[in-house]
Amino acid sequence: MTHTLNLAVIAGDGIGPEVTAEARKVLRAALALDQVELVEHEYPFGAGHYLETGRILDDEDLESLRQHDAILLGAIGGDPSDPRLAGGIVERGMLLKLRFAFDHYVNLRPATLYPSAESPLAKPGNIDFLVVREGTEGPYVGNGGSIRTGTPHEIANETSVNTAFGVERLVRFAFEQAGARPRKRLTLVHKKNVLVHAGNMWQRIVNEVAKEFPEITVDYLHVDAATIFLVKDPSRFDVIVTDNLFGDILTDLAAAITGGIGLAASGNINPEGTFPSMFEPVHGSAPDIAGQQKADPTAAILSAALLAGSLGHTAAAARIEAACRADLAARGSGIERTTAETGDAIVALLDAEPAA
Amino acid sequence: MTHTLNLAVIAGDGIGPEVTAEARKVLRAALALDQVELVEHEYPFGAGHYLETGRILDDEDLESLRQHDAILLGAIGGDPSDPRLAGGIVERGMLLKLRFAFDHYVNLRPATLYPSAESPLAKPGNIDFLVVREGTEGPYVGNGGSIRTGTPHEIANETSVNTAFGVERLVRFAFEQAGARPRKRLTLVHKKNVLVHAGNMWQRIVNEVAKEFPEITVDYLHVDAATIFLVKDPSRFDVIVTDNLFGDILTDLAAAITGGIGLAASGNINPEGTFPSMFEPVHGSAPDIAGQQKADPTAAILSAALLAGSLGHTAAAARIEAACRADLAARGSGIERTTAETGDAIVALLDAEPAA
Ligand SMILES: CC(C)[C@H](C(=O)O)[C@@H](O)C(=O)O
Ligand SMILES: CC(C)[C@H](C(=O)O)[C@@H](O)C(=O)O
Repeated sequence: MTHTLNLAVIAGDGIGPEVTAEARKVLRAALALDQVELVEHEYPFGAGHYLETGRILDDEDLESLRQHDAILLGAIGGDPSDPRLAGGIVERGMLLKLRFAFDHYVNLRPATLYPSAESPLAKPGNIDFLVVREGTEGPYVGNGGSIRTGTPHEIANETSVNTAFGVERLVRFAFEQAGARPRKRLTLVHKKNVLVHAGNMWQRIVNEVAKEFPEITVDYLHVDAATIFLVKDPSRFDVIVTDNLFGDILTDLAAAITGGIGLAASGNINPEGTFPSMFEPVHGSAPDIAGQQKADPTAAILSAALLAGSLGHTAAAARIEAACRADLAARGSGIERTTAETGDAIVALLDAEPAA
Repeated sequence: MTHTLNLAVIAGDGIGPEVTAEARKVLRAALALDQVELVEHEYPFGAGHYLETGRILDDEDLESLRQHDAILLGAIGGDPSDPRLAGGIVERGMLLKLRFAFDHYVNLRPATLYPSAESPLAKPGNIDFLVVREGTEGPYVGNGGSIRTGTPHEIANETSVNTAFGVERLVRFAFEQAGARPRKRLTLVHKKNVLVHAGNMWQRIVNEVAKEFPEITVDYLHVDAATIFLVKDPSRFDVIVTDNLFGDILTDLAAAITGGIGLAASGNINPEGTFPSMFEPVHGSAPDIAGQQKADPTAAILSAALLAGSLGHTAAAARIEAACRADLAARGSGIERTTAETGDAIVALLDAEPAA
């Protein structure tokens, strides 16, 4: 374990800076309790930066970011009606570029129903699962194109690319996660009855890796059926392993059923540490409430906990998670706090007994 | 309007025959009230037929089916653990083959929360929307493949094919549906920030067709965000138009939030009538409860209503829908009825005032 954590901060747009400020505050305090110093460097990237400078993220920026142990990101995205930002140009140029350039092949998204969080489900039960989403393949690879574009004869194709190499490393990571959890259960989600080539390969690799993990119970669901279970019986899930696009869809649904994207954390992880991993709340930049201290920083703070854990600071990670949990349990419904007040409340709870 | 309706019935597997028997009973009675005779021809296709004969659906079968005005299908699919049925061979060979051969480019799936239906949502609100899913393009076209299959160097690709021709006819159908509904609202669901080529084309075509329908309010949601709205604010939706795969996922979720796939109807429609359209409940064959008279035939009966409506028998369609609605309203919770008893109850309600 190092005694400094060299962090790149990309606060980004909208509510990004507000929630990131709280995540940094909490992370700094939690690491200090373990005698780890947080060294922070701020980067200006985002939609605002792009509109000002015309730059999203170039090779030099990537080289600078690479020098850090990890990246904490707030939120990216400007006014959705601004034509200069159409087509997700900044999201792709930042988030997807980082995932591909830094080989963030694990997109890790826990789904936990915390005490006092309000699920839209009538009987949510005990929701506590982990989605291990592939981050560098599938329909996200940008291998699409069109001909006769803009005419009545246009044909637009999108190609999902899946490699045994890419799927196996992801699946092995997912099995390891399942092995470290009490229920030891892994569900592959795909659409193998239609996407037969990709689906067969995913299923074959899951079957093969499963042999190395005989203690883990494995099952399979089509992605359409998985959405039904997510609203009717979400407690059935422990670890879900799935492709990039299905993971995108399922994790937004998972965030919704656990009380909203204000609480959902995520990590874009390069498990080997060849490149820095990047941690961000699942929520977007919410330009409509930016600068008003209305955003809940919990998702950003829980993302910082994932960040600490991924760098081996497991005590700090557990401390942050326990503090968020305690804060959520203590919140009365209807109490209004500023973003900073919530961050302060969580800092004050940090010396609560770590959960693990 | 013809005075006979020449129906092909594919009862299929599992609970298919039970629920189809009730749908036929109700359809026959409803049409008779309008002096239309139902002429029915049964076809044995399905997983059971495939295991017995090795045949799924060949050109001759398609030629026979083509002679009918419409097809009513129960459910397809055998024991999921049977290796002879692996990879969705019968589903693809039957359902997808029919959709492609008969150019069922509209996959129509209403989502209505009927009285007394039990939504898993705490506050479902007034759910009443229509999903217009594309049925003959997208990632369903079978344009995938793999190399080095079965090795650690395998690469498996799946290609989503989208044509302006195919998207435009579907989008126009969706606008027409929206125009006939009181709220006059249409939402395009795609993932245009990642699948930029296909997404841009879908958005362009929606924008173009929208000019012909100035009375309709149009918006756009990414598919991941759409799942959030479906559980947090489903009453916001009126007509959703979307691609084949997104529609597959969203309609299972839509069925779940409206009380389960026991009630969800669907039509695979060739609007021009060049080929017979096919109507089926969204649910599967449920082999575990097959032959026990436990299945709710309502989804199959509502599919028969869609069938009647699509052939211009709108009074019969409205009558069936009103009877299902009245039956659902009258059902006490916890009352157990056989599949046939539910069918009989709906027949008895058929002379209820038609809703339209
Ligand atoms: C912004 C977008 C490109 C991104 C994705 O689709 O992966 C987002 O939805 C996410 O889940 O992180
Ligand atoms: C059985 C399967 C091929 C089919 C599909 O994916 O379209 C089903 O899920 C459906 O929605 O009708």
